[in-house]
Amino acid sequence: MSGRFITLEGGEGVGKSTQIRALAAALAARGLETLVTREPGGSPGAEAIRALLMEGADDRWDARSEALLFAAARADHVARTIRPALARGTWVLCDRFVDSSRAYQGGGGGITDADILMLHGFGSLGLLPDRTFLLTARAEEVGRRLAVRDADGADRMGSKPDDYQARLVRRFAEMAAAEPDRWRVIDAEAPAEAVTAAILTSLADWLP
Amino acid sequence: MSGRFITLEGGEGVGKSTQIRALAAALAARGLETLVTREPGGSPGAEAIRALLMEGADDRWDARSEALLFAAARADHVARTIRPALARGTWVLCDRFVDSSRAYQGGGGGITDADILMLHGFGSLGLLPDRTFLLTARAEEVGRRLAVRDADGADRMGSKPDDYQARLVRRFAEMAAAEPDRWRVIDAEAPAEAVTAAILTSLADWLP
Repeated sequence: MSGRFITLEGGEGVGKSTQIRALAAALAARGLETLVTREPGGSPGAEAIRALLMEGADDRWDARSEALLFAAARADHVARTIRPALARGTWVLCDRFVDSSRAYQGGGGGITDADILMLHGFGSLGLLPDRTFLLTARAEEVGRRLAVRDADGADRMGSKPDDYQARLVRRFAEMAAAEPDRWRVIDAEAPAEAVTAAILTSLADWLP
Repeated sequence: MSGRFITLEGGEGVGKSTQIRALAAALAARGLETLVTREPGGSPGAEAIRALLMEGADDRWDARSEALLFAAARADHVARTIRPALARGTWVLCDRFVDSSRAYQGGGGGITDADILMLHGFGSLGLLPDRTFLLTARAEEVGRRLAVRDADGADRMGSKPDDYQARLVRRFAEMAAAEPDRWRVIDAEAPAEAVTAAILTSLADWLP
């Protein structure tokens, strides 16, 4: 049987990487093969593209080149890592996927959501997750969490102003509302164990 | 006045780089500002992407990732180098452009010409040259020229089998026939000076 493709989405500091590790452990305890991966990156080619995207000055890439590089990295990740894993029955847990491109690159700089989905349709043949969890937390709580992170968390993609963050939150909420079969919105201000439990509950039908 | 955007196309070994240097010298002698550039590359970001495309194993990238990377490099080249030069009145002479992607990436591996043009429409807002010269030579002559080149001319893009080269020649000829206002087909087996003269004759209306 093909594996399930699960993604976690949301802004910085909502606990995606913590939850993805906890989810992998819980699925492994049920005897499932899991693969934890993240974007941009997740395959040798995509990691090389990630380095181009994350390093250098803020204005290193214009918006269109950046969107094409994300799509190229995702295409490689899908072709070389995600699809082969799903085909052999492995559950793939991915920290960010095309919805992050839609939230971060789409709707700004003259780039539409339709553009991002068009690039995804070409590069990755439109692969979408079986389920996407949107982790949400208030801006004050996110700020508190980010303040205790290591300084090396800062790169070209981090540290944007508040109105940018507010736009992101709104974009994610709109996507979740538009596709309720795929998305589940999870309150990520709850204790980590409760967040993991909520995610597992939402996957119950697919679990052995 | 805006500069003219001129591209040279054709397979390996037809003399594009020789002709582009000769053309630049002839235009400069007429008092025109010229910029000689080439693809993939031509801007710092695009050169970084070029390194990803040219290095590594033959199967480093699948066809879709590769097409997206070429489109990303071209978008950066257009935004950062070509459009600014044209806007200040410089003539831009480019060794390969989107038509090389159409010939090399389009029509193989499930990727259509329409896909390549769609990526170009997104990344570079569909910028096309004012004139494109297709340099042609018989396969035997090209083989003779390539044999005297340095060994370092071999990379991921070179050294493909004969039927691949024949398909390329056919694709270039089809594109030239489909857009006769933009393309000029030049016999590149003539002596280099005669080839340059033929190119200049075709540009006569635009020259001071």
